[in-house]
Amino acid sequence: MDIISSRKNPLIAHLRKLGNDRAYRRQCREFICDGAKLLEDALASRLEIIMVLSSGQPPELPQNIRSIKVSDDIIKYLSSFKSPQDLVFVCKVPNNTHSLEPGRHLILENMQDPGNVGTIIRTANAFGVDSIILTGDCADPYNPKAVRASMGAVFRQRIIEKDQEKLLNMLSEKGIPLYSSALDEDTVDLRDVQLPSSLALAVGNEGQGLSERLLQASAQKLLIPMERETQSLNAAAAAAILMWELYKRM
Amino acid sequence: MDIISSRKNPLIAHLRKLGNDRAYRRQCREFICDGAKLLEDALASRLEIIMVLSSGQPPELPQNIRSIKVSDDIIKYLSSFKSPQDLVFVCKVPNNTHSLEPGRHLILENMQDPGNVGTIIRTANAFGVDSIILTGDCADPYNPKAVRASMGAVFRQRIIEKDQEKLLNMLSEKGIPLYSSALDEDTVDLRDVQLPSSLALAVGNEGQGLSERLLQASAQKLLIPMERETQSLNAAAAAAILMWELYKRM
Repeated sequence: MDIISSRKNPLIAHLRKLGNDRAYRRQCREFICDGAKLLEDALASRLEIIMVLSSGQPPELPQNIRSIKVSDDIIKYLSSFKSPQDLVFVCKVPNNTHSLEPGRHLILENMQDPGNVGTIIRTANAFGVDSIILTGDCADPYNPKAVRASMGAVFRQRIIEKDQEKLLNMLSEKGIPLYSSALDEDTVDLRDVQLPSSLALAVGNEGQGLSERLLQASAQKLLIPMERETQSLNAAAAAAILMWELYKRM
Repeated sequence: MDIISSRKNPLIAHLRKLGNDRAYRRQCREFICDGAKLLEDALASRLEIIMVLSSGQPPELPQNIRSIKVSDDIIKYLSSFKSPQDLVFVCKVPNNTHSLEPGRHLILENMQDPGNVGTIIRTANAFGVDSIILTGDCADPYNPKAVRASMGAVFRQRIIEKDQEKLLNMLSEKGIPLYSSALDEDTVDLRDVQLPSSLALAVGNEGQGLSERLLQASAQKLLIPMERETQSLNAAAAAAILMWELYKRM
């Protein structure tokens, strides 16, 4: 088996770009992940794994997955993390243009931090959310930091991307009511609200919250009550509490 | 007013070390923060602010706080963030050797990630937790990343550090029962458990959970139920759900 050790190898240049360049990721519809634990999760999911690059003992793989031996330096070059493991792998971005059916959905709008997006995907997967819908200018769920924060949930969780108008049309066509997380005055306390069995719950940008458009389109605006001196929660913490309440009441 | 523009200035060397070196922070009992928003939070708290360094328009400050003009380069050198603002400031680490009184406390054991520690402090402050108790090998709550993730809650929240044996003795002396977050078999479902009005709730390391010692000392081990394919939640998400349940039932 040959060992790739040159950073200038065209395949390595391609993979490096997959880790760093969101537009390129979208164009190729591939993303790069690192570590044996994530590979195990990816193998257990229905995701298509294209290739595995390892600098140590190559992992056991189904025959249709290409296995490539590389130097430690190449792993270091391709990994987005300070202490990379001895393995990276490449997956196909799954189809994310699904239509919505009634169920429990979570909308993220303009959520900037890939760590928050990944953590929320992990929590959504734990609490049986049917799909995560990304709208507006969200961090890419296939960004290496988001993939890592998701602890592999990104391989299992249905993730949909929709622009705002299409999303609102689709919710309205399917009769899925929009509930939003807000800090405004005309909100209902999360403790007091009845949550329907089919809904789309929206959480907004870390600093700004949801857009006026989504707030106005909401059937109900939910408030997580808190002590007065605090203005807000971290977006992933707020989303966890909302999804927990949904899950508990299922 | 003089402008400090040399990175070799002894004050600048001191401040740089405060940002990078935990042991030095502990020794000096000072920590460095950045940005006008955090400064506002610090001014509104009872925390002692030692000095403010700014490269732009100096902020209005009480007379006892030293104000120093520095170059943009110095701010960049002292800030731990990629896009620093035009201001950093230094605070005194508050006394954290308090004794515990009956109330609602959150214990973090061996929590490694400063972002998680900061986010949890923010959530604890939002949900009226009396004190955060750090035990074992936790990330420093006065690490710049933890301070930023706390969104200023670190200035308001009571934070105590205790080694494990002292902590367990103190809980037992004060009659504060220990509840722990766990994934073991002998746990009680969080939905079904009665939570007392005084307790200490423990959350463990991101990968390993709590130590055997804390689990064994627990009056009750709590399970956050979730879908079978998921093994666990992010530590800050789990802590948020636990604190929310405490707050709701207050």
